[in-house]
Amino acid sequence: MTFDHPSIRRLVRLALEEDIGRGDATTTATVSAGIPGRATIVARHPVVVAGLPILRVVFAEAGMGAARTELRVEEGKTVGSDTPIAEIADEAARLLTIERVTLNFLQRMTGVATLTRRYVEAVAGTRAKIVDTRKTVPGWRLLDKYAVAAGGGENHRFGLDDGILIKDNHIVACGGVGAAIERARSGGHRLLRIEVECETMEDVAEALGTGVDVILLDNMAVREIAEAVRRIAGHARVEASGGVTLETARKIAETGVDLVSVGGLTHSAPAADLSMDLELLQ
Amino acid sequence: MTFDHPSIRRLVRLALEEDIGRGDATTTATVSAGIPGRATIVARHPVVVAGLPILRVVFAEAGMGAARTELRVEEGKTVGSDTPIAEIADEAARLLTIERVTLNFLQRMTGVATLTRRYVEAVAGTRAKIVDTRKTVPGWRLLDKYAVAAGGGENHRFGLDDGILIKDNHIVACGGVGAAIERARSGGHRLLRIEVECETMEDVAEALGTGVDVILLDNMAVREIAEAVRRIAGHARVEASGGVTLETARKIAETGVDLVSVGGLTHSAPAADLSMDLELLQ
Amino acid sequence: MTFDHPSIRRLVRLALEEDIGRGDATTTATVSAGIPGRATIVARHPVVVAGLPILRVVFAEAGMGAARTELRVEEGKTVGSDTPIAEIADEAARLLTIERVTLNFLQRMTGVATLTRRYVEAVAGTRAKIVDTRKTVPGWRLLDKYAVAAGGGENHRFGLDDGILIKDNHIVACGGVGAAIERARSGGHRLLRIEVECETMEDVAEALGTGVDVILLDNMAVREIAEAVRRIAGHARVEASGGVTLETARKIAETGVDLVSVGGLTHSAPAADLSMDLELLQ
Amino acid sequence: MTFDHPSIRRLVRLALEEDIGRGDATTTATVSAGIPGRATIVARHPVVVAGLPILRVVFAEAGMGAARTELRVEEGKTVGSDTPIAEIADEAARLLTIERVTLNFLQRMTGVATLTRRYVEAVAGTRAKIVDTRKTVPGWRLLDKYAVAAGGGENHRFGLDDGILIKDNHIVACGGVGAAIERARSGGHRLLRIEVECETMEDVAEALGTGVDVILLDNMAVREIAEAVRRIAGHARVEASGGVTLETARKIAETGVDLVSVGGLTHSAPAADLSMDLELLQ
Amino acid sequence: MTFDHPSIRRLVRLALEEDIGRGDATTTATVSAGIPGRATIVARHPVVVAGLPILRVVFAEAGMGAARTELRVEEGKTVGSDTPIAEIADEAARLLTIERVTLNFLQRMTGVATLTRRYVEAVAGTRAKIVDTRKTVPGWRLLDKYAVAAGGGENHRFGLDDGILIKDNHIVACGGVGAAIERARSGGHRLLRIEVECETMEDVAEALGTGVDVILLDNMAVREIAEAVRRIAGHARVEASGGVTLETARKIAETGVDLVSVGGLTHSAPAADLSMDLELLQ
Amino acid sequence: MTFDHPSIRRLVRLALEEDIGRGDATTTATVSAGIPGRATIVARHPVVVAGLPILRVVFAEAGMGAARTELRVEEGKTVGSDTPIAEIADEAARLLTIERVTLNFLQRMTGVATLTRRYVEAVAGTRAKIVDTRKTVPGWRLLDKYAVAAGGGENHRFGLDDGILIKDNHIVACGGVGAAIERARSGGHRLLRIEVECETMEDVAEALGTGVDVILLDNMAVREIAEAVRRIAGHARVEASGGVTLETARKIAETGVDLVSVGGLTHSAPAADLSMDLELLQ
Repeated sequence: MTFDHPSIRRLVRLALEEDIGRGDATTTATVSAGIPGRATIVARHPVVVAGLPILRVVFAEAGMGAARTELRVEEGKTVGSDTPIAEIADEAARLLTIERVTLNFLQRMTGVATLTRRYVEAVAGTRAKIVDTRKTVPGWRLLDKYAVAAGGGENHRFGLDDGILIKDNHIVACGGVGAAIERARSGGHRLLRIEVECETMEDVAEALGTGVDVILLDNMAVREIAEAVRRIAGHARVEASGGVTLETARKIAETGVDLVSVGGLTHSAPAADLSMDLELLQ
Repeated sequence: MTFDHPSIRRLVRLALEEDIGRGDATTTATVSAGIPGRATIVARHPVVVAGLPILRVVFAEAGMGAARTELRVEEGKTVGSDTPIAEIADEAARLLTIERVTLNFLQRMTGVATLTRRYVEAVAGTRAKIVDTRKTVPGWRLLDKYAVAAGGGENHRFGLDDGILIKDNHIVACGGVGAAIERARSGGHRLLRIEVECETMEDVAEALGTGVDVILLDNMAVREIAEAVRRIAGHARVEASGGVTLETARKIAETGVDLVSVGGLTHSAPAADLSMDLELLQ
Repeated sequence: MTFDHPSIRRLVRLALEEDIGRGDATTTATVSAGIPGRATIVARHPVVVAGLPILRVVFAEAGMGAARTELRVEEGKTVGSDTPIAEIADEAARLLTIERVTLNFLQRMTGVATLTRRYVEAVAGTRAKIVDTRKTVPGWRLLDKYAVAAGGGENHRFGLDDGILIKDNHIVACGGVGAAIERARSGGHRLLRIEVECETMEDVAEALGTGVDVILLDNMAVREIAEAVRRIAGHARVEASGGVTLETARKIAETGVDLVSVGGLTHSAPAADLSMDLELLQ
Repeated sequence: MTFDHPSIRRLVRLALEEDIGRGDATTTATVSAGIPGRATIVARHPVVVAGLPILRVVFAEAGMGAARTELRVEEGKTVGSDTPIAEIADEAARLLTIERVTLNFLQRMTGVATLTRRYVEAVAGTRAKIVDTRKTVPGWRLLDKYAVAAGGGENHRFGLDDGILIKDNHIVACGGVGAAIERARSGGHRLLRIEVECETMEDVAEALGTGVDVILLDNMAVREIAEAVRRIAGHARVEASGGVTLETARKIAETGVDLVSVGGLTHSAPAADLSMDLELLQ
Repeated sequence: MTFDHPSIRRLVRLALEEDIGRGDATTTATVSAGIPGRATIVARHPVVVAGLPILRVVFAEAGMGAARTELRVEEGKTVGSDTPIAEIADEAARLLTIERVTLNFLQRMTGVATLTRRYVEAVAGTRAKIVDTRKTVPGWRLLDKYAVAAGGGENHRFGLDDGILIKDNHIVACGGVGAAIERARSGGHRLLRIEVECETMEDVAEALGTGVDVILLDNMAVREIAEAVRRIAGHARVEASGGVTLETARKIAETGVDLVSVGGLTHSAPAADLSMDLELLQ
Repeated sequence: MTFDHPSIRRLVRLALEEDIGRGDATTTATVSAGIPGRATIVARHPVVVAGLPILRVVFAEAGMGAARTELRVEEGKTVGSDTPIAEIADEAARLLTIERVTLNFLQRMTGVATLTRRYVEAVAGTRAKIVDTRKTVPGWRLLDKYAVAAGGGENHRFGLDDGILIKDNHIVACGGVGAAIERARSGGHRLLRIEVECETMEDVAEALGTGVDVILLDNMAVREIAEAVRRIAGHARVEASGGVTLETARKIAETGVDLVSVGGLTHSAPAADLSMDLELLQ
């Protein structure tokens, strides 16, 4: 139900208000009210499409509930250059006013999905899944994670409350990996699994002894990752993270880890190049 | 007053709510309340710092009004690898809980400023200014434009209501460049300038005849831009836009245009790599 | 899109909440639910009607989406005494509950439009346009400016961000008219025109030298205004402001100024006298 | 606690957002940050001052919690021309930015109080009190009623839920004055009094028979009002309403009614003429 | 119009957000989208049903405007064990997601109505009415009072502004019962009645002398209540309050008081036991 | 950080608005502004105190940031009859206005904690923990769960997104216990554990085969629960639920289950009896 979520509506409202301000001065002055139009959203280069359901949310919040939308492609599919993605029929002036907000949403979500797909393809054939992180653009957590999933990636925790991930600072505060896991086990509620970040083989050994659910190998060299996987030997899931790039992702995946997490999917994906063409129907 | 603006507060709230959810399960379980801590935000590679005033907004909205912050660098300055940017003293548990949201804000703003600086340097010595567009991340208009300015760029319109920019669709609706400018002149209020998008030399000639304020050369080749600049000859400001890259920016600038607008500053800037180190003071 | 603007919706919600509180004690007790009714809004004296689109916003926010409304007159038209303006069919009890809020909106907007029309008629035949100011009732900026336009006036800036208007205090801070205009030119973005307030002929002369876009003659006598217009001689637009009344407007207009701004249009317009008659259809 | 009420804060936020938009383009460009200033609010003609507590709310919502305010006059007092009302010390740029919103609030509240005082003085020496109505500017209910009280008037119901006022339409729906009062008595809760609108002597007689608390004489001639007062003879409170002006108020008051209600206090009060003078302290 | 009230919508939104968080992890994983379902809400023991109109509000706020609801019983009616109360047809996955929030609303409102009915039956045949208090669950004032009315009770004040109830602390501040009533009479507006709390016969005597509207006998023994009723002798309405239970209610009612107020109706009513059965229609 | 959570602030605002409305008519009329007072909150019978941190949130939202509060007891402690819990010093009139809202919050939280403590004591000495459910009062999820923890209980899931709990309807939709667990495992993210509801020994056997994390025995007789515990033999955690009362809790706990969940902790806890005594300090 991502797109019905109230925080999506809040973000869309913020986006409309910041762009439209007190009104579209250009369109009001140059385009008469009441002229029907048809807008076509087009991808200018090959992309993995993501975010089409945002159209209906943008239109609803913009008072354009009567807009008729036809999707020309399916969410998560790759399309080639100059492919029409969606057509929207409404008053031409209204279509012009919401053009930029609409494209700004779609170009980011499509950009994230497109980059994710490249990582997914890079590790194809290994057991590893590409997963996202909490390094999302503020305000965009749900949309960023949705786009990763549309691109074929998996989602890690959505926030600080739906999983326990013990990092270096937590370990320091508890005086060690084992003690930290013990405290997490008694303090969290019982349907949250526990993951612990390990930087050395010693950390890994200590974590294994506690029966932790997931071990996160942070910033290890590929050779170290491979050794850690051997030691863990299936007694916990294994996630590798830290500076993963399209170049290094496959080598890491081939060590046998379960998950490769990539912050760049959401913090540095370039936007897709989309445009909206308008036809006046009068 | 960017950082006092209510839409910044709305975005910060959205960001805190989506990340913290019902609480930080890991920190609550592993770090005792009341332990004082000191967090240091560090740049891991050379960047142009932007966004430090967001710290106070994040802390205020997170109920951390008592946090003491010391900035170690100035907004808009370039810093080298591993440079401390800011230090924050507060309860350790609270610092851990807001770590990711804080970094997510700073890493994007710093990323935008850093990329902008590269464009600004690319056109140094020409008369051209680098300007942004409305291709910002939804919800981030003010922060994205602030970061561009911190990086040395100039801001174009903030929204649809503080300037008139006549694009192809408006021209079609009016039946021509001249007619569109005429309607805009009588329809907008009198403190808004008028800019018109031109795709051909004929458009430019027609626009010049109307005494328009700014002419936007859209997706023209460098040679065409140069010719347009000659024809316009100072009778209007000239902006060049469309697929500008770090490679092409200087050549375009050298044609004598006043403004080079770059959508990528805000829609495709990679995040800066920042981290927060925590020291427990007990 | 004024009436779809989120701040209109916020104002309407505020108005409904402050009037209805926890419910309409009188109607709940005295009028059975379910009885259909028809309400007719009537002007009790000649007015210029403005604000009819607010009806649909009030009904939507009051949960009366099913109300059927028929407008009997057109927005901006003058109607005589006892003219029906609109008819609304819905449950009688609901119509009674929203009667006062609805009338309170319409009587103010119609009052502003009616007063504006009188000023417009007072300057008819001159080149001058009647324009509004930012002296609107807090919360009512968009509606007040909409009503001025419905009455035949023109709108000046909508806020502090869509135009540059340099006033005496800004001039003092910069050390002079010329310096102030220079700073404004480099500091604002390039699609905002610049207007400067002048109190003396010396100010006017200095402003003219800078090529400013609009010159505001503040609180000058008619004779001075006339002289300033002669000196400016078309090199800038000219606005006259300060204590303009229905008695003085024409004389000022006849000096040849482009704009006569009148704060009283929005801060002191008397409300129109409207009433709502209800017919129970059972 | 009027000025701590959340709907006042909502209105102030709306007012700041609609005026400031994305920022004060003029002040940002022309006045350096950090220069201290002192603003003095001055009445340009004799007024009854009302609304001073709004200053602190405006400043709080504008992020100007550090502004120091000294009031020079007391709320509800009459002051002469060119009297300083309040002085505010803060950064000059911030004072310029909130100047108009602040004055817009004060000039309306002071205008309402000033007009109310004239009505109060008109009926001085009679038993009648001047009371307001629900014909307030939407969004302004609490502030309008506060200003009436500051001017020496009394407040009638604040909304539809804190008193029962049976009007013509309610009477029609119940089939008569007596039946309506009976239904109101059993349907409302027991701490709400009941007032009934009467248009004829027959209505008055029927109302008296029910022991109603207050009788509202609507649009009656002075002679009729006098007769009604005689008949009621203290068995209910008496309110006169409908088209009351400064000219007719005293005659109505002299009939012996308890309350004279005047819609114009809040729907048609002209704004007071206030200005803010700024002194730069550097 | 209780269920159209904005504070109900705010409460429903809060309830949906706190329960659904970022999405229904279980249903998303296990139930395919698009499968139609039919949910039946069933009472597992005899109850007085209250709150059915909340269904439409919950569905609207959850983006389930297309759900079709059929009520099987009437609001305020007693139903036996295992009685179907309402049937809802919508997508099965959506029904599962809003199951708990929906039941949590209905089980509380039905619980309050059921307990109220028992008190109403306990005093049947006396002149006394059972009334509620302001001891409602925070956020639930309108719904709690609605449920009391559905159970056959009467509502007392809805808040601090729709009636005057002078308690011990107010009396102390004024220096006595008589003085307090006098101040209340001149300070409140004229459509609010005045009730005063009395703890002794002396208080009652003093209150009677002022012609107060309602006398509240607080925490008196039944014998004292009876005596107070005799003394008051119809010159004011009489309310008894303080530790009333199902055991003591009738005796208190038989003294001849008009109102018996019971805080426990809303602060301690046990929830009704309701369940939702789901049938997949595929 | 429960009490800094934005949804707590939203609930507190709702509570203040619904109770105070447009102002406290009684206190405004009878208690002069500016008189200092001291309020003491007292428990009238033995309770487990919970909710003291809400005081600061209520005061902040009510504009009473200057109130000084001294707690007399510790959160989660049992106190006897007539024990002072907290003292608050502020203006007397303000204390009177927020009295009821403050008590309404504390009496519910203390009631929930007190009831929880009785269950916790009932199972003392067994391995079982008392846990809550999602059967909380809408709007109160965080506060209800906080109060359960203050009473010594443990918290189960906070919402639908922080754990996977497969119920009968999910099982039906998947065609069986095993299939449902399989789908949940691949569909949820990897830090959520999986719990499955079992109604028969066959369900338990099937669930055990899948290696599920927690088995919920729903509405089983004590004898059946005991048998299920034997069969599960530590291979999954065991939770018992369904109609648990203070009478049956211990017997269920003695079967060896890990968790006994009790909906009544939050849906049917009677409010504690608290009062606020006010002393005027003048």
